[in-house]
Amino acid sequence: MTASRLPVAVFGARGRMGATVCAAVRAAPDLELVAEVEAGDDPQMLVDAGARVAVDFTHPDAVMENIRFCIGHGVHVVVGTTGFDDARLDVVRRWLADAPGVGVVLAPNFALGAVLMMVFAEKAAKYFPSVEIIELHHPRKADAPSGTAQLTARRIAAARAAAGRGPMPDATTTALDGARGARVAEVPVHAVRLSGLVAHQEVLFGGDGEILTIRHDSLDRSSFMPGVLLAVRAVGSRPGLTLGLENLLDLD
Amino acid sequence: MTASRLPVAVFGARGRMGATVCAAVRAAPDLELVAEVEAGDDPQMLVDAGARVAVDFTHPDAVMENIRFCIGHGVHVVVGTTGFDDARLDVVRRWLADAPGVGVVLAPNFALGAVLMMVFAEKAAKYFPSVEIIELHHPRKADAPSGTAQLTARRIAAARAAAGRGPMPDATTTALDGARGARVAEVPVHAVRLSGLVAHQEVLFGGDGEILTIRHDSLDRSSFMPGVLLAVRAVGSRPGLTLGLENLLDLD
Amino acid sequence: MTASRLPVAVFGARGRMGATVCAAVRAAPDLELVAEVEAGDDPQMLVDAGARVAVDFTHPDAVMENIRFCIGHGVHVVVGTTGFDDARLDVVRRWLADAPGVGVVLAPNFALGAVLMMVFAEKAAKYFPSVEIIELHHPRKADAPSGTAQLTARRIAAARAAAGRGPMPDATTTALDGARGARVAEVPVHAVRLSGLVAHQEVLFGGDGEILTIRHDSLDRSSFMPGVLLAVRAVGSRPGLTLGLENLLDLD
Amino acid sequence: MTASRLPVAVFGARGRMGATVCAAVRAAPDLELVAEVEAGDDPQMLVDAGARVAVDFTHPDAVMENIRFCIGHGVHVVVGTTGFDDARLDVVRRWLADAPGVGVVLAPNFALGAVLMMVFAEKAAKYFPSVEIIELHHPRKADAPSGTAQLTARRIAAARAAAGRGPMPDATTTALDGARGARVAEVPVHAVRLSGLVAHQEVLFGGDGEILTIRHDSLDRSSFMPGVLLAVRAVGSRPGLTLGLENLLDLD
Repeated sequence: MTASRLPVAVFGARGRMGATVCAAVRAAPDLELVAEVEAGDDPQMLVDAGARVAVDFTHPDAVMENIRFCIGHGVHVVVGTTGFDDARLDVVRRWLADAPGVGVVLAPNFALGAVLMMVFAEKAAKYFPSVEIIELHHPRKADAPSGTAQLTARRIAAARAAAGRGPMPDATTTALDGARGARVAEVPVHAVRLSGLVAHQEVLFGGDGEILTIRHDSLDRSSFMPGVLLAVRAVGSRPGLTLGLENLLDLD
Repeated sequence: MTASRLPVAVFGARGRMGATVCAAVRAAPDLELVAEVEAGDDPQMLVDAGARVAVDFTHPDAVMENIRFCIGHGVHVVVGTTGFDDARLDVVRRWLADAPGVGVVLAPNFALGAVLMMVFAEKAAKYFPSVEIIELHHPRKADAPSGTAQLTARRIAAARAAAGRGPMPDATTTALDGARGARVAEVPVHAVRLSGLVAHQEVLFGGDGEILTIRHDSLDRSSFMPGVLLAVRAVGSRPGLTLGLENLLDLD
Repeated sequence: MTASRLPVAVFGARGRMGATVCAAVRAAPDLELVAEVEAGDDPQMLVDAGARVAVDFTHPDAVMENIRFCIGHGVHVVVGTTGFDDARLDVVRRWLADAPGVGVVLAPNFALGAVLMMVFAEKAAKYFPSVEIIELHHPRKADAPSGTAQLTARRIAAARAAAGRGPMPDATTTALDGARGARVAEVPVHAVRLSGLVAHQEVLFGGDGEILTIRHDSLDRSSFMPGVLLAVRAVGSRPGLTLGLENLLDLD
Repeated sequence: MTASRLPVAVFGARGRMGATVCAAVRAAPDLELVAEVEAGDDPQMLVDAGARVAVDFTHPDAVMENIRFCIGHGVHVVVGTTGFDDARLDVVRRWLADAPGVGVVLAPNFALGAVLMMVFAEKAAKYFPSVEIIELHHPRKADAPSGTAQLTARRIAAARAAAGRGPMPDATTTALDGARGARVAEVPVHAVRLSGLVAHQEVLFGGDGEILTIRHDSLDRSSFMPGVLLAVRAVGSRPGLTLGLENLLDLD
């Protein structure tokens, strides 16, 4: 260990995502894994180990307590755990108000490609009359459409509304039930479930004589690691709550 | 005109498809366009002109009378007009029973690529636990899913049933209405409508660790012409009713 | 004609692109087509007709003279003609230096989707270790790879260099000649030529366990019209030379 | 163990493919794993264990001796090991000539989807003027194009030649070196190497106004197992040498 390496703790270190994060931190020359916290462990161990940043890919039941503890002890947090609604986010913001130097980065998706897909889709939205989303996942997935697809749809819809775009052209008069997909904020979203797939999404924009397609394929949970490490490195210089990895990217 | 060129008549010769057929027949060195029949014309003109084969891309209201006339006069027919149900097919079969040497080729899709997509999808069906169809069309289309997608789904479902395939894996428990598409004979079918698109279809098969995708893009009605000409050349040696261009292809 | 419509002239109005531009200008409620200039016509006619903007999709042999005339008469110009190198651009800049209020927008591609593809590819470049380009065109195209693919490759390479990205991973030791494509500024570019295609391009970015694909399909020259009209409306408020449609888009 | 389960031996049982095969055999209710043979083990152990079929995914240096031993002891063999040329195949055929009841199934690719892609590509070849292949793999691959891509190209070229197809349309006059890919039996083949990819291949057929694309994505070596088990079950009823999994499929 040299003085220049950033000390990092990982919650849920033996879970599938936690273990992958531990391996990624260990492999990064500028980071040091100083604490692996399991359910039942006293989180004080991460403070004692000198962690400056903690990473939480645990469970909706555990994550709030972990965040509260870290903020209270001046440790920045990177959160990939799901289950955050506005009420939970408000609680985190209140905690942060009392700890002015502390940062929390919370993102629904740490795959850089998925984040870029969403950002680009949002930017492209106003330039095309038509847009639809196809998301494709393994057949063990319980929800349809995916959270990422729904978030993408809402961001596209907001960009269209801001640009004054009206309804999309669609002359369908006779349709089988479900053929035209689900509507998420007016954007049709289609969910494919297929053995052999992992996690994939396509955003299709259509205009006069042209189609723009932005597609993301996530084949392995290793795809989250570059985004997690990017957040670990950045969170210390971003006090307060940062929602979404896109805020840490340089896209201008 | 040389003796070896096959004399061909075209019904609806000034319609969009009819005109394209006329041009294709004129451009084929082994065919001769001898009659262009319009609504209101006396079909006797095609007999007088010596047509051996007539092509009908007209309208459901006109096609039955055209077929009846041709069969009655010993002229083979290639039909791309839509609107055929079992009752209409039975009528055609009865007419043909009285004209043993005459052939009628009737196909819902004359694009070779679309026909091959369907044939290949049917052959692949029994080897994969999962299959879904995505069809994508211009937003002026009135029906969803397309007739080709529904036909593909039914043929896949029949092949799965014949092979004793059970239901597809799908753990979806929470879905927005329409997210998982329409079910056509148990196959999920998703219909995308997008400005800029023409006519496209993807059949996705999934198995352990692998995906097989068969996609057809039809960008122009010229894509029907090779199939129409193939049928024109073949119909004379196929007495009776031939349903589907695939029966004229050599796929063994 | 009302006072508020912008008067537009079109050079090469009977050429394929020119005619399409004329139709698009006529269909736009805020624009008025006041002059259609053909080879051999006196360009003074567009000044007499009161044109404020001229559009040039003509020929490398004609375009410089057209631009010079317009700048000299205070008419803004939108240029889609090909064949511009640094020397020609310098000439245009010198002409503009003497006409401070006049704007020229010159772009190699007016399809909004193609421009967005390039901009997004440039932004994504620094986040992925690997990138390759596949462009696919009709078999009548004389050059390979396409100009758009080469421009995309150079912009990606510049973004990678600016971010300090090293060489891409590639363990190829045994390759057939040409298998790994052409190198354009170190980016592998593959050119497919296929009957039935129009103009298509895919940019594939790869990182740990994920792929981001940005694809553009141009099926019809109508795809250029939204970009041309956008430039026609914007050029009057952009004195000097603007290179590339992306400078007229709002992408922040 | 019941009398009806087929006893199977696996060579190289601790290698990556061998271990995957062992797991697949164990999981199949109609098969029994009776011997796991490692380098250095006496192959007599598989005979003593009563194996009726042996599976070999080992190494070019080891495979011939394994096959010779099995044939000599009346054990059928399924071979996925690479490195077979005509000379080696002739040796295997000679061995089999002396053991009339024994079968050997040898295939370059056991993924059903990959085999179907090749079979369908071969069937489609004669119907389209244009065809190109794009194969996409992880950047650790040493050869380009892949063996599967080259085999696909040769089979397509043979089908085109048999149908009297002439050269493909291609007006390219100015090309950067490598842009148009490698030529394998006249078929252009493009090899993409990208971090994040596994093993993928697209065959694109083009005709008037239409494109037919057949794509295979192999994301995991589990994709070989259905094909391996199919061969294990079939080899006993196919005396002699069977080259290619497609001969075991029912595709009529």
